[in-house]
Amino acid sequence: MNNEEKISRTPFPNSTKIYVDGILHPIKVAMREIALADTKMSNGRIEKNPPVTVYDTSGPFTDPNIEIDIRKGLPRIREQWILDRNDVEELTEISSEYGKKRLNDEKLNELRFEYLHKPMRAKKGANVSQLYYAKQGIITPEMEYIAIRENQRLELINDQTKAMQCQHGGNSFGANTPKSKITPEFVRSEVARGRAIIPNNINHPESEPMIVGRNFLVKINANIGNSAVTSTIEEEVEKAVWACRWGADTIMDLSTGKNIHETREWIIRNSPVPIGTVPIYQALEKVNGVAEDLTWEVFRDTLIEQAEQGVSYFTIHAGVLLRYIHLTADRVTGIVSRGGSIMAKWCLFHHKENFLYTHFEEICEIMKQYDVAFSLGDGLRPGSIVDANDAAQFAELETLGELTKIAWKHDVQVFIEGPGHVPMHMIKENMDKQLEHCDEAPFYTLGPLTTDIAPGYDHITSAIGAAMIGWYGCAMLCYVTPKEHLGLPNKKDVKDGVITYKISAHAADLAKGHPGSQYRDNALSKARFEFRWEDQFNLSLDPDTAREFHDETLPADGAKVAHFCSMCGPKFCSMKISQEIRDVAEAEKGMQEKSQEFVESGKEIYS
Amino acid sequence: MNNEEKISRTPFPNSTKIYVDGILHPIKVAMREIALADTKMSNGRIEKNPPVTVYDTSGPFTDPNIEIDIRKGLPRIREQWILDRNDVEELTEISSEYGKKRLNDEKLNELRFEYLHKPMRAKKGANVSQLYYAKQGIITPEMEYIAIRENQRLELINDQTKAMQCQHGGNSFGANTPKSKITPEFVRSEVARGRAIIPNNINHPESEPMIVGRNFLVKINANIGNSAVTSTIEEEVEKAVWACRWGADTIMDLSTGKNIHETREWIIRNSPVPIGTVPIYQALEKVNGVAEDLTWEVFRDTLIEQAEQGVSYFTIHAGVLLRYIHLTADRVTGIVSRGGSIMAKWCLFHHKENFLYTHFEEICEIMKQYDVAFSLGDGLRPGSIVDANDAAQFAELETLGELTKIAWKHDVQVFIEGPGHVPMHMIKENMDKQLEHCDEAPFYTLGPLTTDIAPGYDHITSAIGAAMIGWYGCAMLCYVTPKEHLGLPNKKDVKDGVITYKISAHAADLAKGHPGSQYRDNALSKARFEFRWEDQFNLSLDPDTAREFHDETLPADGAKVAHFCSMCGPKFCSMKISQEIRDVAEAEKGMQEKSQEFVESGKEIYS
Repeated sequence: MNNEEKISRTPFPNSTKIYVDGILHPIKVAMREIALADTKMSNGRIEKNPPVTVYDTSGPFTDPNIEIDIRKGLPRIREQWILDRNDVEELTEISSEYGKKRLNDEKLNELRFEYLHKPMRAKKGANVSQLYYAKQGIITPEMEYIAIRENQRLELINDQTKAMQCQHGGNSFGANTPKSKITPEFVRSEVARGRAIIPNNINHPESEPMIVGRNFLVKINANIGNSAVTSTIEEEVEKAVWACRWGADTIMDLSTGKNIHETREWIIRNSPVPIGTVPIYQALEKVNGVAEDLTWEVFRDTLIEQAEQGVSYFTIHAGVLLRYIHLTADRVTGIVSRGGSIMAKWCLFHHKENFLYTHFEEICEIMKQYDVAFSLGDGLRPGSIVDANDAAQFAELETLGELTKIAWKHDVQVFIEGPGHVPMHMIKENMDKQLEHCDEAPFYTLGPLTTDIAPGYDHITSAIGAAMIGWYGCAMLCYVTPKEHLGLPNKKDVKDGVITYKISAHAADLAKGHPGSQYRDNALSKARFEFRWEDQFNLSLDPDTAREFHDETLPADGAKVAHFCSMCGPKFCSMKISQEIRDVAEAEKGMQEKSQEFVESGKEIYS
Repeated sequence: MNNEEKISRTPFPNSTKIYVDGILHPIKVAMREIALADTKMSNGRIEKNPPVTVYDTSGPFTDPNIEIDIRKGLPRIREQWILDRNDVEELTEISSEYGKKRLNDEKLNELRFEYLHKPMRAKKGANVSQLYYAKQGIITPEMEYIAIRENQRLELINDQTKAMQCQHGGNSFGANTPKSKITPEFVRSEVARGRAIIPNNINHPESEPMIVGRNFLVKINANIGNSAVTSTIEEEVEKAVWACRWGADTIMDLSTGKNIHETREWIIRNSPVPIGTVPIYQALEKVNGVAEDLTWEVFRDTLIEQAEQGVSYFTIHAGVLLRYIHLTADRVTGIVSRGGSIMAKWCLFHHKENFLYTHFEEICEIMKQYDVAFSLGDGLRPGSIVDANDAAQFAELETLGELTKIAWKHDVQVFIEGPGHVPMHMIKENMDKQLEHCDEAPFYTLGPLTTDIAPGYDHITSAIGAAMIGWYGCAMLCYVTPKEHLGLPNKKDVKDGVITYKISAHAADLAKGHPGSQYRDNALSKARFEFRWEDQFNLSLDPDTAREFHDETLPADGAKVAHFCSMCGPKFCSMKISQEIRDVAEAEKGMQEKSQEFVESGKEIYS
């Protein structure tokens, strides 16, 4: 499979990939720098506009200087950092039985990723989780990378822009959102406290370090993956690359179809962001889709299989307890979580407690050897407005809190999954209860959707809830695409979902007053007011669409420098008029003189 | 111009236009009834699902029994109600000088609407505003129509659905949102208090009565209109019909190009919803776009011209005072309101106070004769996140409060326009200050946009702010289309904007606990859980898109009855599994028996 040409990798307009050096460690932190045009003042003076650096999740794909061969995978930037810690061993072969079977199945040769690497695992008795290091007081290269990355070179933002902070500063619901720059020590302390996690499997050294915690930029996840309806491996790789291009901070591979082991390998080897999965999906495939045939042994082998491929977090529905299931019987939409319904079915059939719950400590033992984080699944999340915040949902949340403390005892990183479908006035209660029951472990929600009546637009019904819960303190938002409830997302849907969620996440960052957020709004608004159309396009989340929409009505190049647009036309352009007003008002004179002066300057303007 | 075929008028799928009779008055209230399929229970029983009645803004265009001829305009349903009040006179000719000139210009004959009606005006000394009647204790047909319309036949909703109210009820920020049905007397009392308005020009009897107030369903406005970039009259009429079809409660005609007098006539005669305008735009055209040449006389004639055509509310920027203008000088985006910048320019040039402010009582005298409502414009609204909630904005808001009381003194209806660009944490302050300064007059906001960085997606950046401020008590939301800041919206943009804002408005209704809102979510979620795909499509805001997205992956008709979809496939369908779980759990038995029974029922299911 040699299809680079099918993989999106054009750089963003007027943007350069830059790499900022670390101080504590020999690291190079990737960012995107957007160059801006000068401002031509009405008095003829020229004002330089500093370039704007933005957080960049697109990885090497947008760096023309890096050669990409998806058959070989991305550069393994973290490999040396991991080896330098001297606490891992390279295995001679993969440990999972299933993995071995797939490896030795010749029918799969042409599907299989060619350049397989030997898996790494913690040396006997060692714990390689970032939480473990953080508790030891160690600032890892990953932590320094994150500190530099979150700051986005704030120091470059000139005073004028710094001065442009909106009134009232913003009121974070985080415990102590830094009002200035984020330090590597702050990253360490948040991880040590369990308030933030670094999804960072040692077997995915291609991934660029990122953090999920409410005192950092709000992150978003994009789900990809094929289902019974077939879609090719290459399509899934491109979908992942595409999602990262537009801003996905992590990718969940939810494949449930054929060859998901091989598909996952291709995705991980080519993903610059951490990958999450729901292992129970693959386990179910292994028992031909019969939930009651699931066993701890099959599940355990699946965890090891995926951990050694490099999955950085596992959604595990260990909170779906036998005694909670009847609480869903009177719901309008029952159990809508796939994993939740699978485990509920298993529990009822065997009338036994959920084996993910009874084997939880063994799961911790496995995960700490690879630094896989828990994404404790909300298997009983509400699937409709009417089911929101009910007894089943909150009973499970309390159990997830109990499991959080067990995971922390093992120094395994944890975040908590949340709903779902919740009307606006009931969203904050979800955040408050999660912080309380789960002792501030990061929250990771799907939406929530704020109404059920708009299938086809659920990226929007959920963007409302996502922005609000992000403001309230949710650390990561799982995107919803326009196809939610209706079908499998295609590339357009993935982009729509990602851009929509970048909007929600950024709106939340603004509301929290994150220092690394508002300067981009200010730079774009300044460009807009000064009719620097190209800068306005280039500073936006989706330059292609902004430009395309503008050109629909005014395609001529001249229009890119015109001091008006098709919305109002020249006579009605408020921006143009208020630029004139400013020219007057700025002159420190009495109103009387001002109006006089205006007549003159006005004359000029119209000559 | 005979282009009915170009006008959208197909009924919605499985929907019937129904008319509910009034009790106090001989009125017929139009609604849309969606018929649903039966529920087939797993035990073989059949459960009927009552039809769902929804608020319908599409007018006669979706009633196949009504003949439409846009050259003649819509049926004048309110004409008799108005005449019966005996307080209006039919004028022998239109009063405005400009209107007469256009009427006698033969070059316009082919553009002109053929079947012109003589304008109506209050008899000398009379006041025909709904506010005047309300204060007299009169319940008008308009008020009864609104009460019936807002209730959407709640009585039909069966107990089961009524029982399905989400926990905690919802917490309205309104003074006293009715938890049960809305009565005509409640409508009257809210109007009399000034807390709600009925945009309802006596010269637009084709429009169906609707109300704007925070104790009623949240309404949305769609802006249409051509600009310097030409677009034909017929396109504008279809744009209006199209916007109403998808849910616009009012339409603002913001035309600034040629023939706006004639365009407006065509739009009003064919609009089932009230029309609003910004008269200063046309006044500026009359002085060839030179703001400083504007005069009270030109503006006055424009008000009368538009009032006699049937415009139901005027945006008037009377709060842009000379002394406030310098407050915008240091803004990043100055003055972004077209009307605001025009008036600011006039004030500075002449160094005189805004003539809309100095002539405010004369404006009231004109408006009360036709029942035109004030939409007090926020000429100094912020155009960027950094300018939000600043001194200029709030100074103007206080003046709007002062003007509100003057309008009320004349029994002229008023609502207040609001921003704009506001980060989430600063939105509530806008609502609180507006309620305080404007004594609870309805608030009508544009968005607000919660970030500046997503041109091309501002329907979404603003849908977040719109939903929140709607929840906080904003009565009407002015839509924003994807083309905002970039170009003129086309039909697709208009639909995207309207659907997006219906989502925000409905999410707000749910959060406020409006009795006439959640039943639709419940009905759709129940259909979804029961795999009644057709019902799910038909109950959604946009049945066409929902169906189209579903069929992209599963086009076969069989898939419409399949108990799974392409997202998860049959094995992973949580809905299917939890239906099985419910079948078990519902049987009142001990868990042990349940699991036993499950094995059996399970066998059946898989046979």
